[in-house]
Amino acid sequence: MRAMVVTQFGPPEVLKLQEMPQPRPGPEDLLIEVHAAGLNPVDFKICRGAFREGRTVPFIPGYDVSGLVREIAPAVRGFKIGDAVYASPSLVRNGADAEYVCVDARTAAHKPASLDHIQSAALPLVTLTAWEALLLRAQIQNGETVLIHAGGGGVGHIAIQLAKFHGCRVLTTASRDESIKLCRQLGADVVINYYEEDFVRRIEQETGGRGCPIVFDAVGGQTFDRSLDCLAVNGRLITIVGTPSPEIPRKLFRKNATLYFEFVGAPTVYGVHPESQGEILRAVAKLVDEGQLKPHVGRVFNLDELAEAHRVQESGHVTGKIVVRVRV
Amino acid sequence: MRAMVVTQFGPPEVLKLQEMPQPRPGPEDLLIEVHAAGLNPVDFKICRGAFREGRTVPFIPGYDVSGLVREIAPAVRGFKIGDAVYASPSLVRNGADAEYVCVDARTAAHKPASLDHIQSAALPLVTLTAWEALLLRAQIQNGETVLIHAGGGGVGHIAIQLAKFHGCRVLTTASRDESIKLCRQLGADVVINYYEEDFVRRIEQETGGRGCPIVFDAVGGQTFDRSLDCLAVNGRLITIVGTPSPEIPRKLFRKNATLYFEFVGAPTVYGVHPESQGEILRAVAKLVDEGQLKPHVGRVFNLDELAEAHRVQESGHVTGKIVVRVRV
Repeated sequence: MRAMVVTQFGPPEVLKLQEMPQPRPGPEDLLIEVHAAGLNPVDFKICRGAFREGRTVPFIPGYDVSGLVREIAPAVRGFKIGDAVYASPSLVRNGADAEYVCVDARTAAHKPASLDHIQSAALPLVTLTAWEALLLRAQIQNGETVLIHAGGGGVGHIAIQLAKFHGCRVLTTASRDESIKLCRQLGADVVINYYEEDFVRRIEQETGGRGCPIVFDAVGGQTFDRSLDCLAVNGRLITIVGTPSPEIPRKLFRKNATLYFEFVGAPTVYGVHPESQGEILRAVAKLVDEGQLKPHVGRVFNLDELAEAHRVQESGHVTGKIVVRVRV
Repeated sequence: MRAMVVTQFGPPEVLKLQEMPQPRPGPEDLLIEVHAAGLNPVDFKICRGAFREGRTVPFIPGYDVSGLVREIAPAVRGFKIGDAVYASPSLVRNGADAEYVCVDARTAAHKPASLDHIQSAALPLVTLTAWEALLLRAQIQNGETVLIHAGGGGVGHIAIQLAKFHGCRVLTTASRDESIKLCRQLGADVVINYYEEDFVRRIEQETGGRGCPIVFDAVGGQTFDRSLDCLAVNGRLITIVGTPSPEIPRKLFRKNATLYFEFVGAPTVYGVHPESQGEILRAVAKLVDEGQLKPHVGRVFNLDELAEAHRVQESGHVTGKIVVRVRV
């Protein structure tokens, strides 16, 4: 089969179109004919050597898929040949930037009927991330104020929608015009252009000096460090990046705060409750088909343009999601 | 009234017996005639200058009280003159090492009927800490394995009992013979003498290499750092110390872990849901009177021996709690 492979660890140029053997489903797997593959920052990170232990080149990246079921392991229930499904493939197996990919059936679900494969492939990884972070872990409640960093980004634009759907007041940061516009369209109550104003001071004003009870950070670095300063007493801070910050205990202890490290790969990498992701994706498909949640696809690339797609992802100059068209 | 006061920030020698004005209850307060005051590590920390902002000497330490209600602010409901009550006074007001103390009535409860004042004064701060940490925040579940550091300590010996009562398997660390014996009496399933063996390796063995799903650290320093290594995927780590550790994100992100900073002073210091502590202490009194929870008082000192009590607390050479007898 045709696949884009990482030939050695490095920048996007290491990605090459190659013939690779079609994968064979393991005992819990579906073999999916890939129609579209979503792109995420984890792709260029893995390409550059993150999560490297035990991984050998060449391998196929791509951790979002939408496509059709072509083979089903005997023990698997709930799917039939030809079903249109979506999932986030394991970070430690070959991914979806290819004609076929195997995924653990427990992590997959039927894709939203109201979306095509391109749009469906934009959903799994970012929606699982935002859902696990906000709903299962921080457990946002109706009426709470949530600060979502990079609201125009892949995770951010889904997080805004989930938080609004759950009755929260949403404050968000963004900088590019297109991202600010998207945040507003999605219903964010306050959009802070962090190039033009200090977000910590603005959060202070917006929360009567109390700080924000929930902060969701998909950016890391300074944004994480400064988020420590705008968290309220009893606050919940979620990071999906894991910035090394020596200030964490000093700034969070007196606030009686909680820090969630959200690593969406955990269920598939460690095999701990993989079925939870299938359950979430079923709930997500329902929400999408009811018109309550919608992915924003900012750019579409063909499979052989994957290196360029990685470059754009890495530049951060994209609103919503990048999706790779594999078979149309 | 007679009171032990911190005359300047420093070691236990700065504590002096002095005449101080009897406090006058604020609008939410009870005036309590102190019969006994519990001692905690926070006492010597505050004496040495912790939580110093806005605090002026001389002040009265002592953050656990058991005694009788002598005055009640007009708006307060639920108490009458002469009631025997217990509470953890605010860290930013004068404390209980005196003949009288004022506490926010919302944070107080009737003391357990089955205990005397000495035993009751051993409960509030450590039990609030363990209850908030294990039940409200980490939300331990029946059948889960919990590692409790310093199981023979003030917080630890209560945490063991709460975890056992909720059906958990309890692993605990201790070193002195008396502490090990207490941990066993309280029903700990595994007691690890950390002077004799590496607790990280032992936890690995005891959990089939998966690590512990819940770790409760009341020790800090190296114990906290090494706890990062024995936490399971999806694990919950609770610290009541806030050790500055630059390794936190690197070690916890990939584990999809949660880090709770438990600061028991938050409700009284910031006035955020002070009623939660009264509710917990009512539930605690019921549990104690049903024979499900029991404080262990390791040493009793008279009020004028408070400096010596601080020295013993600071040395760590005490099993369970130190209590100060004020009026008997």
